[in-house]
Amino acid sequence: MTNTTRVYRFHEYGNSDVLKLDSLPLTEPKADEVRVRVQAMSLNRADQLWMANTYVETPQLPSRLGYEIAGVVEAIGGEVTEFKIGDCVSSIPAFSISDYGNFGETAILPARGLMKTPDNFTPTQGASFAFAYFTGYFALLELAYLQPYQTVVITAATSTTGLAAIYMAKKIGATVIATTRTSKKKNVLLEAGADYVIATQEEDLTERILELTDNQGADVIYDCIVGGGILEKLVAAIKIRGHYIVYGTLDMNLAGFPWWGAFIRSPHFHLYKVFDFTGNRNLGLVGNEEAFARAKKFIAGGLSDGSFPVVIDREFEGIESLPDAMELMASNQASGKIIVKV
Amino acid sequence: MTNTTRVYRFHEYGNSDVLKLDSLPLTEPKADEVRVRVQAMSLNRADQLWMANTYVETPQLPSRLGYEIAGVVEAIGGEVTEFKIGDCVSSIPAFSISDYGNFGETAILPARGLMKTPDNFTPTQGASFAFAYFTGYFALLELAYLQPYQTVVITAATSTTGLAAIYMAKKIGATVIATTRTSKKKNVLLEAGADYVIATQEEDLTERILELTDNQGADVIYDCIVGGGILEKLVAAIKIRGHYIVYGTLDMNLAGFPWWGAFIRSPHFHLYKVFDFTGNRNLGLVGNEEAFARAKKFIAGGLSDGSFPVVIDREFEGIESLPDAMELMASNQASGKIIVKV
Repeated sequence: MTNTTRVYRFHEYGNSDVLKLDSLPLTEPKADEVRVRVQAMSLNRADQLWMANTYVETPQLPSRLGYEIAGVVEAIGGEVTEFKIGDCVSSIPAFSISDYGNFGETAILPARGLMKTPDNFTPTQGASFAFAYFTGYFALLELAYLQPYQTVVITAATSTTGLAAIYMAKKIGATVIATTRTSKKKNVLLEAGADYVIATQEEDLTERILELTDNQGADVIYDCIVGGGILEKLVAAIKIRGHYIVYGTLDMNLAGFPWWGAFIRSPHFHLYKVFDFTGNRNLGLVGNEEAFARAKKFIAGGLSDGSFPVVIDREFEGIESLPDAMELMASNQASGKIIVKV
Repeated sequence: MTNTTRVYRFHEYGNSDVLKLDSLPLTEPKADEVRVRVQAMSLNRADQLWMANTYVETPQLPSRLGYEIAGVVEAIGGEVTEFKIGDCVSSIPAFSISDYGNFGETAILPARGLMKTPDNFTPTQGASFAFAYFTGYFALLELAYLQPYQTVVITAATSTTGLAAIYMAKKIGATVIATTRTSKKKNVLLEAGADYVIATQEEDLTERILELTDNQGADVIYDCIVGGGILEKLVAAIKIRGHYIVYGTLDMNLAGFPWWGAFIRSPHFHLYKVFDFTGNRNLGLVGNEEAFARAKKFIAGGLSDGSFPVVIDREFEGIESLPDAMELMASNQASGKIIVKV
């Protein structure tokens, strides 16, 4: 181990062009922190928004970046009891990106922002599950209280978060209606466990959901606001007093809100992010420790018993390939996680 | 008592012009119904929408109308145990207007759509409390779980529903921020118990709410979507993970939804109507009997002890004056309930 470590930073806002691999002094973790030797970095849409300064938090330049990593514990703070040197760990979304950016040879994280990587997982897999499963867990189990006898609609279901939601809903025993733009990836979704797949450009979304739910509508809708009038169609197909969870917006230009349709069916709209439950100092979110503990247990269980797989699109070799990996993400061509092995 | 009764109906959709006072055979209540000799009819915005066929239910022509009345029980069905002939009763919003329209000399109502008028109330008062207090009750107590240490913002607070919400929130002990367009009616709101009044055309709504809540935002917002960009300003002033209850839309043309602001503060949006809790067969709403029973108890208590007053704008004399009363409502000049004494 040298006295310096190479970490990614950006000194101006932008896309992959502004990434710099800077050599910085290696620092020691504080009392509640852990230093991790990074083995795999997993790209997340939030990384893109963060670098472009279009995220909910504002980067102070120069800024580190990177939410999702896996690696090996190499130093621990005095108050940390959950981990020991040599443990394989994965970052989980329970910290502020303003305080902790993780892409590089090493990352310092608060202990609450880590969990042990399942024994059967490679570093690539270990870096790839956390955001998708934690985001889905709180939405489906702690906001919507999804039950085995209920039906959930999952939009953009071929995305990493969409697939994770399918696996979790099936673990609970609920009926899953997955949506995707065309029928091209229908089989992927059926193989992941979706009971029904609706191709939104080929079928009438409202009509199909009502048909599949005895005209009652879906109990829960888990949506990232995919645009194209889908919101209005979903509101018309939610069960009366159902839960509509918005966990992100793929279409930030979307302006309309279907007030009238919403009044007919009286849904509960939850505009939600994972940090509502895990906490984020810089967003003023205190979190919910009980729910967070339940999430870790539920997710660790599913990862270990094989019911919560992760889908990898591509592994890049070598820390220097992060800009290329970022460009692949920006191209919207990947399906599954994009990994850079360090 | 004759064999006929005069009741209001409309034979085509429209405004007060289409009202007809038709003589119809007097019918007997079914097993779960009560016939009421109407003493006072109280106008409601929903009556206007219903007649114009812009309501959530669709009138089958010719159609009766009228939600809010008070009167005396003159006949009861075989299964009705809660009321006896001679009781003074008030209609409460727990029936479908498609099934029961009440304006006229007599009205037949299901027993669940009635409660005893408080002893100290005139028929005018007895016809005037129900929608406002029941709507506010479920929103504040059963959706938002309003607590004494919390702050609620009530928009369009000089309206009948706004004032009722102020009285209920103060009964609970919460802090009330009332909004109104100009400072003209500020005193009315302070006298009703509002702790603070914000004139939305004269002050910065977001800034003032944040100032009054130690920069935390309001725990609960009780809004009828008054338009003019107020929604966006309120979303920016809601406490993180607060409850935003939309109980009506004064501005049905409102299209924009402040997605970005909403993401920052992760609110729970409840698009709500009173029938979500009291039930409405034609809207497919089964209601919540426990919550309905709690509502009746809470409201009856506040009416009896004087903490839930009703504000009357004007009493018209004689059943024939309903069209004039309807025109006054349409003019938006009234503040408080408009009554027709039969």
